[in-house]
Amino acid sequence: MKIGIIGLGLIGGSLFKDLKKLHDVIGISQSQNGENIFKSYEVLKDRELIFVCTPMNKTLKVLDELEEILPPDTVVADVCSLKEFVSQKQRPYKFIPSHPMAGTENKGFESSFCGLFKGAKWVITGEKNEKLISIIESLGATPVFTTAKKHDEAVAMISHMPMVIAQALVLAAKENPLAIEIASSGFRDTTRLALSNEEMACDMVKMNHKNIEQSILKLYKAVGDLTKGDYPKTIVEIKSIRSKMF
Amino acid sequence: MKIGIIGLGLIGGSLFKDLKKLHDVIGISQSQNGENIFKSYEVLKDRELIFVCTPMNKTLKVLDELEEILPPDTVVADVCSLKEFVSQKQRPYKFIPSHPMAGTENKGFESSFCGLFKGAKWVITGEKNEKLISIIESLGATPVFTTAKKHDEAVAMISHMPMVIAQALVLAAKENPLAIEIASSGFRDTTRLALSNEEMACDMVKMNHKNIEQSILKLYKAVGDLTKGDYPKTIVEIKSIRSKMF
Repeated sequence: MKIGIIGLGLIGGSLFKDLKKLHDVIGISQSQNGENIFKSYEVLKDRELIFVCTPMNKTLKVLDELEEILPPDTVVADVCSLKEFVSQKQRPYKFIPSHPMAGTENKGFESSFCGLFKGAKWVITGEKNEKLISIIESLGATPVFTTAKKHDEAVAMISHMPMVIAQALVLAAKENPLAIEIASSGFRDTTRLALSNEEMACDMVKMNHKNIEQSILKLYKAVGDLTKGDYPKTIVEIKSIRSKMF
Repeated sequence: MKIGIIGLGLIGGSLFKDLKKLHDVIGISQSQNGENIFKSYEVLKDRELIFVCTPMNKTLKVLDELEEILPPDTVVADVCSLKEFVSQKQRPYKFIPSHPMAGTENKGFESSFCGLFKGAKWVITGEKNEKLISIIESLGATPVFTTAKKHDEAVAMISHMPMVIAQALVLAAKENPLAIEIASSGFRDTTRLALSNEEMACDMVKMNHKNIEQSILKLYKAVGDLTKGDYPKTIVEIKSIRSKMF
C-alpha cells in the first residue's frame, strides 16, 4: 500500500519502522532545527493512507493543509490522544479519527521502535475503513470502535488523570527528603507517567480538563469508599478487575 | 556468620537464598497447612543474627517468644514496613528495627529470589550494629539511618498512600467499560501497587492510617497546585526530582 506518515516522533517513527518493511512509505518530519525534510505535503498526493502523527496542538493545522492537496478518496487517520476536537469539521478526504493505546515515556524518532503497537488496542471513532483496519491489524493491534465523546472520557480515566496524579505524587513527596531518599520500585512504577513529555501533558490537560476533573472526583470518591466496606474483599475484587485488564 | 531467618516469604525467602551461599543459615517457616517446619525457636539459640520476616500482624508475638530463648547478645532485626509499633518495648536481646525498601507484588517463598536487595535502601531505626550493617551491605543494599517516626511518615508518602491510590484508580475505572477495555501500559504501571497482598495492605492501612491520611491530603493539595503556576515548568521540575530518585 502507498502510505504517508506526517510527524516521525515516538508514534509516527514506530509506524514508519514497522510499515516500511512491507509497504511503500513516505515519512515527513521536521529536523531538530525546524527545517522541513520535505518542503511540502505535495509528495503525499498519491498516497492511499496517511497517518498524521504530529503533536495534538499542531494536528488541526496539518489536517487543514492536507485539504489543499489530497484527492477525496485518500484515507487520513490521526493518532491524537483526544478525539472530539479533531472530529468537529467535515474534511474533503476520508478522515478517520483514531488513537493507538501504545507509548512509552520517551519521545522522538530516536525512541521509536518496531513492535510498539503489538498487542495494543487502537481506538477508532470514525467509519470502519478496510484499508486502515488491515494496517492496524498487520501491526498486531486490535481496533476498538466507539464515539469520540466516550473515548475522551475513558482516556481521562486511564491515562490523563493518572498522569496528573503521578505528577502530584512526586510534587507531594518532594517536601519529605527521607521519602525521596528511600523511594523504591513501587513509587517508581506508580509515578512513571510523570515522565510524559511536557508538550503532550499540557495539551492533554488544556484540551481534556473537564473529563480529567470528573475523573479526579471519581478517584477521590473511590479513595473514600475503599476502606468503608470489607477492605480485604475489596482488594481481592480490585486485583481481579486489574488481572483481566492486562 | 550464624544467621537465623523466621518467616520465609518474599523477603525472608530472598534473604535465605542470598545468605546461605556464604553463611550458616537456619530458616524457620510454616508450611501452607500451618504446620511448623521446626517445632520451636530453640534451634535459633546459637545464632548471632536473626531476621524476623513474618507478616506485620504476627511480628510482635514472634519478638515476644524470642525473649524466652535468645541470649542477650543476639542481634535481632525485623523487616516490617512500619517501625514505630515494633519500637515500643525494650527487648532482652539486641533488637534493631529495620526495613529493606525492596519487594515485588508477589508473595511467598516461591516468589523469592537472589538479588532482591541489590541496589535497595535498607532503613535502620535502631543502633549502628556492625554485624547487621555488614550483612546488609553484602546483599548490595545501602543502610539509611533515621527515626521510627520519620520512617513511618516517609513510607506512607512513597508506598502506603500510593498503594491506596492505585487501588482507588482501579475501583474508579471499573465503572467505565471502555476505560477497562483500552487501558494500556501507563495505567498498568500506575496501578501495579494495587496487586499488593491483602494481608500486608490491611496491616499497612490499619497500622499507619494517620500518616496515610496526611499523605492523601498532601497529594490532594499537590493536585490543586499542579496547574496553578507555570505547568510546563512544574512538569520539568517534577521530572528532574524523579530522575534523581531512580
